[in-house]
Amino acid sequence: MTSTETASTGTMYRDRCAAVLDHMREAGVSAMILGTGPDLEFFTGLRISSHERLTALVIQTDGEDFLVVPAVDAGRAVRTTATETGITLMPWRDGDSPYELILRNLALPDSGDEAGRVPGVALGAALTADHVLNIQDGLSRINYGCVLAGPVIDRLRMVKTGYEIEELAAAGAAIDRVHARVPELLQPGRTEAEIAEEITGMILEEGHTSVDFVIVGSGPNGADPHHSFSDRKLRTGELVVVDIGGALPSGYRSDCTRTYLVADTDPQVMTERVLDMYRVLEKAQAAAVKAVRPGVTAGEIDRIAREAISAAGYGEQFIHRTGHGIGLTTHEAPSISADSGTVLEPGMAFSVEPGIYITDEVGARIEDIVVVTDDGVRPLNNRPRSLFW
Amino acid sequence: MTSTETASTGTMYRDRCAAVLDHMREAGVSAMILGTGPDLEFFTGLRISSHERLTALVIQTDGEDFLVVPAVDAGRAVRTTATETGITLMPWRDGDSPYELILRNLALPDSGDEAGRVPGVALGAALTADHVLNIQDGLSRINYGCVLAGPVIDRLRMVKTGYEIEELAAAGAAIDRVHARVPELLQPGRTEAEIAEEITGMILEEGHTSVDFVIVGSGPNGADPHHSFSDRKLRTGELVVVDIGGALPSGYRSDCTRTYLVADTDPQVMTERVLDMYRVLEKAQAAAVKAVRPGVTAGEIDRIAREAISAAGYGEQFIHRTGHGIGLTTHEAPSISADSGTVLEPGMAFSVEPGIYITDEVGARIEDIVVVTDDGVRPLNNRPRSLFW
Repeated sequence: MTSTETASTGTMYRDRCAAVLDHMREAGVSAMILGTGPDLEFFTGLRISSHERLTALVIQTDGEDFLVVPAVDAGRAVRTTATETGITLMPWRDGDSPYELILRNLALPDSGDEAGRVPGVALGAALTADHVLNIQDGLSRINYGCVLAGPVIDRLRMVKTGYEIEELAAAGAAIDRVHARVPELLQPGRTEAEIAEEITGMILEEGHTSVDFVIVGSGPNGADPHHSFSDRKLRTGELVVVDIGGALPSGYRSDCTRTYLVADTDPQVMTERVLDMYRVLEKAQAAAVKAVRPGVTAGEIDRIAREAISAAGYGEQFIHRTGHGIGLTTHEAPSISADSGTVLEPGMAFSVEPGIYITDEVGARIEDIVVVTDDGVRPLNNRPRSLFW
Repeated sequence: MTSTETASTGTMYRDRCAAVLDHMREAGVSAMILGTGPDLEFFTGLRISSHERLTALVIQTDGEDFLVVPAVDAGRAVRTTATETGITLMPWRDGDSPYELILRNLALPDSGDEAGRVPGVALGAALTADHVLNIQDGLSRINYGCVLAGPVIDRLRMVKTGYEIEELAAAGAAIDRVHARVPELLQPGRTEAEIAEEITGMILEEGHTSVDFVIVGSGPNGADPHHSFSDRKLRTGELVVVDIGGALPSGYRSDCTRTYLVADTDPQVMTERVLDMYRVLEKAQAAAVKAVRPGVTAGEIDRIAREAISAAGYGEQFIHRTGHGIGLTTHEAPSISADSGTVLEPGMAFSVEPGIYITDEVGARIEDIVVVTDDGVRPLNNRPRSLFW
């Protein structure tokens, strides 16, 4: 990395820490305590694995931002990041309390009320219960309560910048290149596991640095939406759900599902019922994608997909929401679900992935990542969706 | 897996769920809500990855045990486990509230007090803040509070059964076989990353099914206890800290550190200072291992290692606790730290791993997993600890 790149990276993270302050003030939150994982990566670029010793980034409206980190983890990468981002490093040693360290450095504007109901502090979703309960104990002693940081951070994270959209587009193109190579793998007699292993290699070959998941669900296994893969052998004429994704070096994710027909392009090998089911799904997915534009709610996108599937009698077999946001994580805001009133804005990126699952028999899903543009939608996955392509 | 093995596996998990009830009653806890990860694996054998949809096992003293799981994840493996263990499966769909599902099925013996201070419910450490705060909201409506489940479960988990000790011994032997192959890799001019890649392959070759971590810290990098590896090239005469571990098919873990001298067995290539430092460390680690027996506290083991190192003037350079328990996770109870009053019992398994770290210059650590026996200690790692072997 050249020094110019280093400087601009530091600037990007500093900008993100500054940009979230307005959202914090709106929510009445003076401090956010964020754990390792996507929150920490989004605001600092650091990818530190989580363990029982607390690592936490504290972002404050009226005090300095600081990173509490176990001394054993305060290596060069952490020290460099602190310097570049201007975040104060606060290492702690075994025997010290990281919770007290946080409390001592919180700049809360005024004291909480006696019932501890002033929610001046927001906690990142990834903090685990062992840390949450200890932080809550400390806050209650100063009469403060806490809320979830998710809604505050989501406001910032779910509207992607131009840089983020181009990274997601590159990830989409990379996983499309993998899907282009999938049909040749789907030979009758081969196991889901053999195919999954080859796909894993392809995900890395096509530009990802890590593989997030590989689902190869043939025949009845396609009816388990989160089936991974098994020793089941593919048979001619059955459907195979292939749902795959990984991360680019930048951390941005791909996630794309296609349902394939094994080794035969003759629709006669399938029952009318399966063929009908798939056509219903194709239409529902296309209708939901086409409906994406600024001003529409996420709930409305879910409703459009669900109504098309329900009208054809498969409503009970569509057992999950229509989609999820994507960025530095595979699942993030906005949720494309019936109960979501989130109004779509240009820059939001999410999956549109209805599915129909007939238990122990057959399943199908079609998934594209899309980005809301100024006047409509830009799909980031563009492989054919037809079974007979 | 034969049906006999399946039956006995189901029995093992049923026994664990039953055995923890006494510890719950002692702690005044009627229900434990446990997330995915080692808690779920310990009590059911299920390895489900965690995401924003809640999966939780609820174990109750006065009600049935149940598993709340997203419908999309309730595939065959989950259904089979539920049948074998006798745990009731409660799938939920997007749009339903898994928190309400838990609340409706909690069998709490009597109502909490108005301040919500009856800690009748314990939460597993791995539950994330998004779930914790929602569960707390629900509990507060029925005037219940919550505590951490860790202390309750640790009582059961930290004393290993014969089966668990043999699995840990097999893991220890497997990682010893890897360390036996490490010296040949440590050639001057090779990078830490090249060596780490080869070690990763060896960890899998020697019987592990996954690699938990590979640390190759040469020269000054050895002074970062949690350094992973870098493009730094090894040089003759310097120390390299190699700390590696993985998981067997059973899920039980290995974790072993040796410090090596690069490509030379002549002590003259090292400064007197480094040689002295390493000898202090060797003696401290051996003294701490020898002190392990039933009745001694974990804090006392830490004190013995720390005193030997402090007496030689390196106290400030030993920046972490002496060790940690190991089992289905690499870090679990008991903690071998100054503040621990845990009294050692036969069957406890943990690391003894003092280290000395001189920032930006050099570091060394020696780590063995040991098991407390009826009258002393059984080290599960047995590779030589001398630099000149």
